Amino acid sequence: MPCLTGHFYFVSLPMPETIFTYDQLFQFTNNIFKKIGCSDEHASTAARALIAADLRGIDSHGVARLSGYVRLWEAGRVNSQPDIKVIYESPSTAVVDGGSGLGLVVAPFAMQVAIEKAKHAGTGWVSVQNSNHFGIAAHHAMMALEHDMIGVAMTNASPLVAPTNSIDKMLGTNPIAVASPAGVEPPFIADLATTTAANGKLEILQRKNQSTPDGWVQDKDGHITNDPFILKKGGALLPLGSDADHGSHKGYALGAIVDIFSGLLSGANYAPWVPPFPAYVPMPAKQPGKGIGHFLGAMRIDAFRPADEYKKHMDDWLKGFRNCRPKEGEGKVLVPGDIEREFEAERMKNGIPLMDTVVNDLQETANKFSIQFT
Amino acid sequence: MPCLTGHFYFVSLPMPETIFTYDQLFQFTNNIFKKIGCSDEHASTAARALIAADLRGIDSHGVARLSGYVRLWEAGRVNSQPDIKVIYESPSTAVVDGGSGLGLVVAPFAMQVAIEKAKHAGTGWVSVQNSNHFGIAAHHAMMALEHDMIGVAMTNASPLVAPTNSIDKMLGTNPIAVASPAGVEPPFIADLATTTAANGKLEILQRKNQSTPDGWVQDKDGHITNDPFILKKGGALLPLGSDADHGSHKGYALGAIVDIFSGLLSGANYAPWVPPFPAYVPMPAKQPGKGIGHFLGAMRIDAFRPADEYKKHMDDWLKGFRNCRPKEGEGKVLVPGDIEREFEAERMKNGIPLMDTVVNDLQETANKFSIQFT
Repeated sequence: MPCLTGHFYFVSLPMPETIFTYDQLFQFTNNIFKKIGCSDEHASTAARALIAADLRGIDSHGVARLSGYVRLWEAGRVNSQPDIKVIYESPSTAVVDGGSGLGLVVAPFAMQVAIEKAKHAGTGWVSVQNSNHFGIAAHHAMMALEHDMIGVAMTNASPLVAPTNSIDKMLGTNPIAVASPAGVEPPFIADLATTTAANGKLEILQRKNQSTPDGWVQDKDGHITNDPFILKKGGALLPLGSDADHGSHKGYALGAIVDIFSGLLSGANYAPWVPPFPAYVPMPAKQPGKGIGHFLGAMRIDAFRPADEYKKHMDDWLKGFRNCRPKEGEGKVLVPGDIEREFEAERMKNGIPLMDTVVNDLQETANKFSIQFT
Repeated sequence: MPCLTGHFYFVSLPMPETIFTYDQLFQFTNNIFKKIGCSDEHASTAARALIAADLRGIDSHGVARLSGYVRLWEAGRVNSQPDIKVIYESPSTAVVDGGSGLGLVVAPFAMQVAIEKAKHAGTGWVSVQNSNHFGIAAHHAMMALEHDMIGVAMTNASPLVAPTNSIDKMLGTNPIAVASPAGVEPPFIADLATTTAANGKLEILQRKNQSTPDGWVQDKDGHITNDPFILKKGGALLPLGSDADHGSHKGYALGAIVDIFSGLLSGANYAPWVPPFPAYVPMPAKQPGKGIGHFLGAMRIDAFRPADEYKKHMDDWLKGFRNCRPKEGEGKVLVPGDIEREFEAERMKNGIPLMDTVVNDLQETANKFSIQFT
C-alpha cells in the first residue's frame, strides 16, 4: 500500500508478503483463542480486538503478536477462562479485576462498564487491575462512539522508556486514545504512544538494517545513539519530545499520568514493575500490584450539551482541520484517525498484507494446535 | 535564581530585576482587580491564581500579564462582575457559563463544581464556556489535592499552533494539568503545553536576541526557521514532537483533545476562533461559540480504592522516579511538579524577582488607577 502520510511511512516496505482477507485472519485467530481455552464469546471478542490493529495499519500490534499471547498462556501468565469482575465502584467509577485474562477481553468488558456508568451518571471511568496487553487502545475507545459518547482508553506497559535525564527505564510506551463522535464527518480518533517512536518502528528498522533518526533512543548511559537494536543493549526509548530542549519532560509527564490512572488507581503493577509481553522475559522481582493496568472512560455527550449541537460543531471543527492549507509538497492535512480509517477501508476491500516472517509464525502456531492456517 | 534543571533554564537571566515579596504582589494585584470592579472575593481568587504562576517560576503567566487582563476589561472583553452559573448538568458533569468573567475566577468556580460532583458521584467533569484566560492550569488542578482527589485542568487558547503538515494556525498551546495526592512524598503535579515550546520561551529569546533551537517554530510557508519573532510574521509554534519523524502528530492530537473537551463539549469557541489574549488583536470574525473554553475534572481516590492504599503506592512510585540514576553530568531525576515546588519554597522565602520591564508595566497600571505600587 502506498504511503498515506509521514507518520506511518514505515509500514509500507517492499518485503515479501501475502495478502489475507479480514475474515481469514479473524477465523484463524478466533480458532487459536478457542484452542487455548477461551469461551466462544471471549475468543471472538479477543480476535476482533487483535485484528482491528492489522485492519487499521498498526501491523506491530495485530496478528504478528498472536503467538506472543499464546506463549503468555503457555507460561501461565494469561488465564484463558478469567473471572472478570467489578471489585469496587461508585456511581461514575469502577475498578475491574481482569482475573489475569487477555487484555483483549478484559478491556472491552471494562469499557462496557464505563459506558453503562455513563448512561446513568453522565460519565464512567474504570481502572483495571490484573490484566494483560490489550492490543490497540483506539479499538476500546471507539466502543463509545455508537452510544454518542466520547471514549477514552489508556494502558500501562512494561518499562522501555527513560524519564528525562534518567538512564533507568521506568515507563512503558503508555498510549492514550480518545474517540469523539461527529455528525456527517468521519469521527476524531486519536491513539498515541507517549514516546517519540514506538517499539514497533524500531523493529521495522532492525529488519531493514537501518539507523534510527536522532531523538528516538538513548544508550545505557543516556547518550544519543541511532542503533535500532539499542533496547537489547540496555538502552531506552525516549519520551515524546526526545530531549529537554524539545519537551521530553512533557512526554514523560504524559506517560506518568497514564501509569497513575491505569496502575495506581486500580491496584495493578506500575512503573518498572509492569509485567513484560515476551513470555521469555522474567517477571519483575517486585510485584506491588496485580498484572497490567488499564484506564477506560466514557463521557455521554448529552451530559454536557444536546448531542446534535455538539455534532454540528464537531463537523465544523473536523472540516476546518481537513481543509487546512498543507505545506508545499505535502498531501492534505489529516485529523487523528484519518489514516487508520483509510487503511481500514482499503484493507477490508483488498485484504491485509502480512510479511513472510509473520505468515511463518502463524503457520507454526497453527501446527502447534494441529489446525489449518487459512 | 540558579537553574534547577533543563526545562526552565530560560527563566533565570542576568537581567535587571527587583525582588518583591509574595504579599506585596498579592496585595497589589488584589487592589487592581478590585479597581476594575471585581468583588472582594473575586479579586482575591483572581490574584491568588495569577501570582501562583510567579511563585511557581512560570514568570510568563503571572503579574507580567496583569496589564493585559486590565486591557481586556477596558476593551469590554472581560466582565468584572460576571454571572457565573451552571447551565447544564448530570450527576458527574456540568457545563458552566463563565459570564465573560476572568478565567482566573471562572476556573476555580468550575473546579469547585467538579469537586462537589465528585463527592457524590465519584468523579466530576465540568466544561466551561464564555470564559477568558485562566492563568496556569496546575493552580486549578491542585484544588483537588486537599480533598484526596486527582485534579485535571485544561483550556483552549487563541491559535498559534499549526497541525502537522499545515501552514494554518489552528490550535492554542492548549495545556493539560494533572495533580495527584500522595502520602508523605510531595505530590505529582504535571502541567504541560501541548507544543514543543510555549510562547513565553520565545519572548525570552526575543529579549536576548537569540535564535530558537530547531523544531520550535515554522515560518508562514511551513519551512524550518530559528527566528523567535516568526509568530509576528505569519509563522507558527509546532506541536509537541516538532516534526512528523518525532511525533508532532501526537502533540497535535493532544492539543486537539484539549480543544474538544474545553471548547466543543461546552459550547465555547474552538480551533482558530478562540479569542486572543492581547486586547489590541481583533476578535475572530467567526464566533461559533462563547468566549474561551476550559475543562476541569476531579476524581475521588476512594471511588476507586481506599485512599491510604493508593497514597502508599504513590509514595513508592514517586520515590522510584526521584531515585532514578541520572545521566552523567545531570542533576537528580525529577517528578513533574518538583521544579515548581522548589521555586515556590525559594520564592516564598526570598521573594519573587521581576524584570524591570515588568516592574515598569506594573507601575503604569498603578498610575492608571492612581494607586500605590508596593
